[in-house]
Amino acid sequence: MSAVDKYPSQVLQDAVDAISSLPGVGSRSALRLALSLLGRPAEEISQFAGAIGRLATDVHYCKRCMMIADGELCPICADSKRDQSLVCVVATIRDVLSIEATGQYFGVYHVLGGIISPIDGIGPSDLKIAELKDRVTAGGVSEVILALSGDVEGETTSFYLYRQLAPLGVKITTLARGLGFGDDLEYADALTLGRSITGRQPFKP
Amino acid sequence: MSAVDKYPSQVLQDAVDAISSLPGVGSRSALRLALSLLGRPAEEISQFAGAIGRLATDVHYCKRCMMIADGELCPICADSKRDQSLVCVVATIRDVLSIEATGQYFGVYHVLGGIISPIDGIGPSDLKIAELKDRVTAGGVSEVILALSGDVEGETTSFYLYRQLAPLGVKITTLARGLGFGDDLEYADALTLGRSITGRQPFKP
Repeated sequence: MSAVDKYPSQVLQDAVDAISSLPGVGSRSALRLALSLLGRPAEEISQFAGAIGRLATDVHYCKRCMMIADGELCPICADSKRDQSLVCVVATIRDVLSIEATGQYFGVYHVLGGIISPIDGIGPSDLKIAELKDRVTAGGVSEVILALSGDVEGETTSFYLYRQLAPLGVKITTLARGLGFGDDLEYADALTLGRSITGRQPFKP
Repeated sequence: MSAVDKYPSQVLQDAVDAISSLPGVGSRSALRLALSLLGRPAEEISQFAGAIGRLATDVHYCKRCMMIADGELCPICADSKRDQSLVCVVATIRDVLSIEATGQYFGVYHVLGGIISPIDGIGPSDLKIAELKDRVTAGGVSEVILALSGDVEGETTSFYLYRQLAPLGVKITTLARGLGFGDDLEYADALTLGRSITGRQPFKP
């Protein structure tokens, strides 16, 4: 192109650059999205930008479970119908949303904010582990469920948490691992199938 | 879910709703993008929102070709090296970017802002057709290239523009249609192949 560096407007260029910085959004998609926004009335664009901007200014973190919240406590910690003595430890907010979507859990959460990963420079002090210990030490917690991923980092973090929490005398459990519903034995990986066998459950007809 | 309506924070909910209003972005992707933004420092989130918000406030339209611009004229209309007497009429800004990307066009543009589409309630008066006529009437335009889509709406708009512009005595051309480079005759649709035959060109070895 001769006259235009890339786009005919620096404002458009900036918007495309911002949008394409999102994970999984390429520059062509970013342009498509920016032009789609540009086609809206100015007021709607401002509302859109405002909704994004408030992520920087108006999001709080629950002082009890470190989940995002609008106030001091998240809706789950503030809910008297949830079992506040059952604490499910997860890596991220998204894990909370995944477990909530099952509709099978009625306890509360503790969001670590990541998992221990030396390769990424994330150590125990970067996570909300001290807050978890304080929470257990303060009493009222009967069981801690370690709901971390099944990879090396997740297992390492689970083991670290176990070492930290076991002396406090709290019951510590972890998620059941095994074949998924509808999974075929033939296609299951050996590690998963092995865990399904060693962790076999009483048959409930 | 019991305590949370959908997300644990109305601020997150608003951001997800805004992002999922974009074309081709579902609610799961929107959540992923919102959480990714939320993981950034507050300053970066504000910059992101600012870049979007300026689409509402800082984008101008070129007073000559109706393309987006940062000032009064777009970089293409302001470029003395471009042939200002050759005007390519396109439906949208994206069409300008597509033609610019070819590196084969050295004239200027006129952005209609859409095409005539009665089913969508878009008539000639909703497009920048009067501005195009004024531009041709003012003189200095030797050729108008109709570069609209080849569907019914595009053809209708081209025909309407032809009827409006022909009395002004300007040369009116349209994009060549035919087989794409590398296209196989066997797989070409009949309409395209037919146009390739009727619009055959002198062979230049």
